[in-house]
Amino acid sequence: MTGPFSACGVITLLTDFGLSDPFVGVMTGAILSRYRAARVVDLCHGIQAQAIGEAAFWLERCYSWFPPGSVHVAVIDPGVGSARRILAAALHGHCFVVPDNGLLSPGLIAAPGATVASVDLLRFGITAPSATFHGRDVFAPVAAALASGAVTVPECGPDAEPLPCALRPPRRTDRGFAGEIVTVDRFGNLISNLDASLLVPSTTALQLGEHVVPLHRTYSDVRSGALLALVNAFGVLEVAERDGSAARRLGLGRGAHIELIAPGTER
Amino acid sequence: MTGPFSACGVITLLTDFGLSDPFVGVMTGAILSRYRAARVVDLCHGIQAQAIGEAAFWLERCYSWFPPGSVHVAVIDPGVGSARRILAAALHGHCFVVPDNGLLSPGLIAAPGATVASVDLLRFGITAPSATFHGRDVFAPVAAALASGAVTVPECGPDAEPLPCALRPPRRTDRGFAGEIVTVDRFGNLISNLDASLLVPSTTALQLGEHVVPLHRTYSDVRSGALLALVNAFGVLEVAERDGSAARRLGLGRGAHIELIAPGTER
Amino acid sequence: MTGPFSACGVITLLTDFGLSDPFVGVMTGAILSRYRAARVVDLCHGIQAQAIGEAAFWLERCYSWFPPGSVHVAVIDPGVGSARRILAAALHGHCFVVPDNGLLSPGLIAAPGATVASVDLLRFGITAPSATFHGRDVFAPVAAALASGAVTVPECGPDAEPLPCALRPPRRTDRGFAGEIVTVDRFGNLISNLDASLLVPSTTALQLGEHVVPLHRTYSDVRSGALLALVNAFGVLEVAERDGSAARRLGLGRGAHIELIAPGTER
Repeated sequence: MTGPFSACGVITLLTDFGLSDPFVGVMTGAILSRYRAARVVDLCHGIQAQAIGEAAFWLERCYSWFPPGSVHVAVIDPGVGSARRILAAALHGHCFVVPDNGLLSPGLIAAPGATVASVDLLRFGITAPSATFHGRDVFAPVAAALASGAVTVPECGPDAEPLPCALRPPRRTDRGFAGEIVTVDRFGNLISNLDASLLVPSTTALQLGEHVVPLHRTYSDVRSGALLALVNAFGVLEVAERDGSAARRLGLGRGAHIELIAPGTER
Repeated sequence: MTGPFSACGVITLLTDFGLSDPFVGVMTGAILSRYRAARVVDLCHGIQAQAIGEAAFWLERCYSWFPPGSVHVAVIDPGVGSARRILAAALHGHCFVVPDNGLLSPGLIAAPGATVASVDLLRFGITAPSATFHGRDVFAPVAAALASGAVTVPECGPDAEPLPCALRPPRRTDRGFAGEIVTVDRFGNLISNLDASLLVPSTTALQLGEHVVPLHRTYSDVRSGALLALVNAFGVLEVAERDGSAARRLGLGRGAHIELIAPGTER
Repeated sequence: MTGPFSACGVITLLTDFGLSDPFVGVMTGAILSRYRAARVVDLCHGIQAQAIGEAAFWLERCYSWFPPGSVHVAVIDPGVGSARRILAAALHGHCFVVPDNGLLSPGLIAAPGATVASVDLLRFGITAPSATFHGRDVFAPVAAALASGAVTVPECGPDAEPLPCALRPPRRTDRGFAGEIVTVDRFGNLISNLDASLLVPSTTALQLGEHVVPLHRTYSDVRSGALLALVNAFGVLEVAERDGSAARRLGLGRGAHIELIAPGTER
């Protein structure tokens, strides 16, 4: 869906706060204190501490599964307390509220009709937020105002150009495309930034470190314990071990080099 | 409550997805995209990866604490992407949506008037789900349709006989009943599949590995640091250490042998 | 906000249950079974097992971020199954439901007009709760009744005087004030029970173990990797390492001694 943003009351939260402390609960309370009918959904709070690129990846790949009119808040914010800007963006019928540190991917910003504003906190009556918890003191009230329809993105503040995305794009190589492992899920699947659109019909394998991993459609296409690469449900290439953990098996994790390779170019 | 299923809008989610990734959040978004008023409750996402028996145990022991008319979705699904069936079941006024891999216990299926259907995905307009994330692409839309009252279980597809339950039942021994530790909770309590109904008045102890553990009513019946067995709040026998972790103390966990024994038969 | 408690339907849950088991989910189900419109928010379930002082700290520092009329349930309850009392309290427009084991801080109890009742379970029809899971069998129905407005705190039972708070207060020393580290957050920040009100204009440092840590306003006031003390968003002093973990760096955690010191009294 493209078109203007029309709030539906849903607010999703994506943070590196974890769930062992009450930070997410208090942020939710701050939202409810301003907008009692908000529907708050925890998208994920397990982003690695300060891993802006990982969060940018999930934000771009997840938002469209929520109803149009949702407000997506991402608080991975090493600069909390400094003068970094807060951005509000409307695009594809959704809204995003983030610190300006690379959380918005180029694909999002380039959406037709996308609007990005630098949030003027005074317009929200925010004059003295705490120095350490802007999730509660800044992002919650801004998200509540946008999700309730009380304000629109252009009303948040002046137009703004976001800082470049923290998620590095894949680059072309003489063998195909090179990217990196962006995140590792609970099952030990190694998830890359290589979009399925980079595949060509002749592609049959990936190179991950010193391993050449064959490409299949799904886990059950190989025997238990075998390694495979596949296009996962978020449209990117991942390396998995059927019924096991590829991360443990290969000793690899976030940041590992991965390359889509043409047949016969294995090393 | 027995009787036909009448949807109340509550959907519970039981998975082995964990909470470190956005899978649960996205599944919730997919539900809300189809049924905006759904009340989604996270029953538990900490099931051990692919531990179908553990999930079957909790599903059977937990569902009745939710309002009649709830839809309970369990996604522990090593066969995702293969041809395994999806089941929808209505029983005791509740509804269940699961892969057909042993998640439904005999006690559930045997409920008077229980109805089980093999879900025909085409009836839900699901033609090309991803190969790896049926929680989002299959279970979410089916649960949304059932929880909103848009479809009934018989309308989901043809009648089906579920595969046998993955949770092994206790067996009779010459000393009493033998079972196993099904799950270990955060406190290190060792929770078995031995139902309280297997106790006889003369039972005063359990054998767990080489340990004979006395049976008590509650934790505070013994001094701090002592081991005890008790009937827990889910109606099964568990072994605990007061103010400590029985799992760490005994070095035991899931799968450990446990036996209800008659007095004088300790080994 | 002071004044009488007027229920708004929000129930917050603070426990040491963790999220790896279905205990929180089932407790939520028990609430919804009695009060279908309840708005249940997970404040935090990562309190250390049986850490009453840590929970008392967070309860006092977090409740006011929720809407007036919220019911705050804290279940850190080593005495479950024993004869310990259940308390319901109304103060500052909020309601609290806790076991009587030190979860209510002196600051809460001293609120003008605060009312504390010892809950008479028979008035709620609770005659035979399980011995091990009062979150589900006692706290859930009491909270549902209070949050729906069906009962008031004085109707819960006779007036009661809570047991002393498990969170020790700071004490005056010849150098300033001494307290302790109450909790450590996901980022490794060491959070103390020293309230910002104990600071005097001449304070420039804290002593934590053998380390003298300079006081700043926010993380970004120091270079990456530097230690600092600051007043955090909950109004207490915390020790942090910018872009790192102070807990790991210093090898310190819960219970560590921390002291606000006058200039020139470092050791």
